[in-house]
Amino acid sequence: MASDKPSHRFDPNFTSQVINAMGPKTSPRHRQVFGALIRHIHDFAREVELTVDEWMEGVKFINALGEIYTKSNKTRNETHRICDILGVESLVDEITHKIISETGIDPTSSSILGPFWSPNAPFRELGDVIFQDGVPPNGRVAKMHGVIRDITTGKPIPGAVFDIWQASANGKYDFQDPENQTPNNLRGKFRADENGRYWLYCLHPTAYSLPRDGPSFQLLTLMDRHPMRPAHIHFMVTHPDYQACTTQLYPSDDPWIKSDTVFAVKDDLVVDFKPLQGDDKATLELEYNINLAPKGYKGKI
Amino acid sequence: MASDKPSHRFDPNFTSQVINAMGPKTSPRHRQVFGALIRHIHDFAREVELTVDEWMEGVKFINALGEIYTKSNKTRNETHRICDILGVESLVDEITHKIISETGIDPTSSSILGPFWSPNAPFRELGDVIFQDGVPPNGRVAKMHGVIRDITTGKPIPGAVFDIWQASANGKYDFQDPENQTPNNLRGKFRADENGRYWLYCLHPTAYSLPRDGPSFQLLTLMDRHPMRPAHIHFMVTHPDYQACTTQLYPSDDPWIKSDTVFAVKDDLVVDFKPLQGDDKATLELEYNINLAPKGYKGKI
Repeated sequence: MASDKPSHRFDPNFTSQVINAMGPKTSPRHRQVFGALIRHIHDFAREVELTVDEWMEGVKFINALGEIYTKSNKTRNETHRICDILGVESLVDEITHKIISETGIDPTSSSILGPFWSPNAPFRELGDVIFQDGVPPNGRVAKMHGVIRDITTGKPIPGAVFDIWQASANGKYDFQDPENQTPNNLRGKFRADENGRYWLYCLHPTAYSLPRDGPSFQLLTLMDRHPMRPAHIHFMVTHPDYQACTTQLYPSDDPWIKSDTVFAVKDDLVVDFKPLQGDDKATLELEYNINLAPKGYKGKI
Repeated sequence: MASDKPSHRFDPNFTSQVINAMGPKTSPRHRQVFGALIRHIHDFAREVELTVDEWMEGVKFINALGEIYTKSNKTRNETHRICDILGVESLVDEITHKIISETGIDPTSSSILGPFWSPNAPFRELGDVIFQDGVPPNGRVAKMHGVIRDITTGKPIPGAVFDIWQASANGKYDFQDPENQTPNNLRGKFRADENGRYWLYCLHPTAYSLPRDGPSFQLLTLMDRHPMRPAHIHFMVTHPDYQACTTQLYPSDDPWIKSDTVFAVKDDLVVDFKPLQGDDKATLELEYNINLAPKGYKGKI
C-alpha cells in the first residue's frame, strides 16, 4: 500500500508520476489494475534495490518465454507455467471462484487449468474409454463415475458436460508425445444422463515432472525446488445454467501431494482409488460427485 | 510489506507457502528477490481481485512480447519497451546509479539505455560526422563537444570513450530503417584526447513515437497515454577506471519534455543548442561536459 512517508532514499514522487500519466479515457478497471501493478512493481524494485543488470536478466527471461511459445507453434506455454510455479494461477483461481455456500453443500473446489487443456477434445459416449490408443505399458485402468448436482437444491444436473484430460503413464500429454499418442488420446467430453450421472474409463494418473529444458526449470533450479507435480486427472464441468468448474483430482497416496510444484492441491480434491471386481475393463474404481453453483449464485461473501 | 493480519478474505497462508517452497541451496540474493517478487505479485492480485480471465490476458500479452522479439530476429525488444513505459528502467537506473557527490561536482545523471544501443558501433576520429549516410532531409547539423572530467578531482579523463547514438530526422534508428540507413549510421565511438575533450558532428535530434503496431502501443492505448519521446541524443561514456555513464540529452524547447512516455528526462540532461557561425559543417553547437565518478566511489549515501 502507498504510504505518506517513503521508507527508501529514492525519488518519492516517481511512482505517482508514472501512475498519473494515465489519461481520462482509461477505463476504471484498467486504471485500478495498471495503477496497482505499477505501484507493486516499483515497490518491489525499491525494496530489493533491483539493479539494471538484474532487471535486464528479467527482460531476457521474459523474451525467452515468448520465444519458446513462438518456436513450439504455440503448444508450449512457459509463461503460463512460470505463473503456475509462482502460485499465480492458483491464487487467481481462488480469487475468481471462491464461493462459500449457504446450503451446506459446498461447490466442488476449482483448481488450475494448466497449459494442457485442449478445446478440441471429442464428445464420447457414456461408458467409453478415453485411452483411444489402448492401455499404455504400466497403465492401470479405472472406472470413473459420479453424479453432477446443484448445490442449492441437491438435485442432479442432466446434460452437464464432463470434459476430462490426463497425461499417459509416461507422464506426457498427447501433444507432448506425438510418437506414442494420437491427437485427443486421453481426452474426452461426456454428457451426463437424465440423472446427472457420468461414467467412463480412464487411467490411474501418473506423477510427472515439468519440462526440464526451459525457463521454468531454470527458475525452479534457482529456487532450489523440484519440478514434480503429483499424479492428477484434470476435468472441467460445464452447463449453460451453472458456473463452470475446472479442477483436478489427486490420488491420496501420491508422494508429491504435499509439495505440488504448482500449488494446486486442495483437500476436497484428494481421492482414493478403490479395487474394482467384476468389470473386465478396469481393476480400479473412482467415484467422484461434483457440485455446481447456479450462474449468478454468490453464496456467503 | 507482509502484515500479520491479512486485509483480504483469501487463504492467509498461501503466499508464505509459495515463498517457503524455496530450498536451502537458493542463493541469498535469489531468495530475497524471488521472495519479494512473489509477495508483491500475490499482493497485487489480491488487492485488485485479479480474475482468471484477466490473468490469462496477461499471459497472452507476455507471449506476444517474446513473439515479436523472436520474429524480428531479436531486433525489436517490446519487453524492454514495456518496462520503459511502466517506468521500470528509469527506476532501476536510479536505484543502481544514485551517487550524491561529496566534492560539489555532481556526476552526470544517468538515464535509460533504451532498446536501440548497439554493441557494434565503430570508432570514429575526433571531429568526424556520425551521419555516415549524409545529412537527411530536414536534418540540422550540430557540432557537439565537451570535456570528460573526474568528479573527485575536476581533472580531465584522457582516453575516455564517448559512444553516441541517435535516431535520424525521420525518427528512426538504423536498424528500424534499412531502406534509408546503412548499419551504424548515426552511431559512433570517440576516444577523448589528452585533455579529456571530445568533439564530433551529429544531428539536432527529432522527437519520435514509439512503434504503434505492437503490445507496448496497446498498453499505452489502454492507459490513454501518448507514445511520444522528446527529441534526444543517447550516449554512454566509459573508461576502465571510472563508473560508466549511460544517458540522454534533451533540447529544452521540445514539446514532449514534460511528458516523456518512458520517464527518462532529468533536469541536468536538458540542454540548449546554440547557433554556430564560421563552421561550414554545422549551423548549431552543443557543448556538454561530462562528470564521471571513479570506480568504487560511493559518495554520500
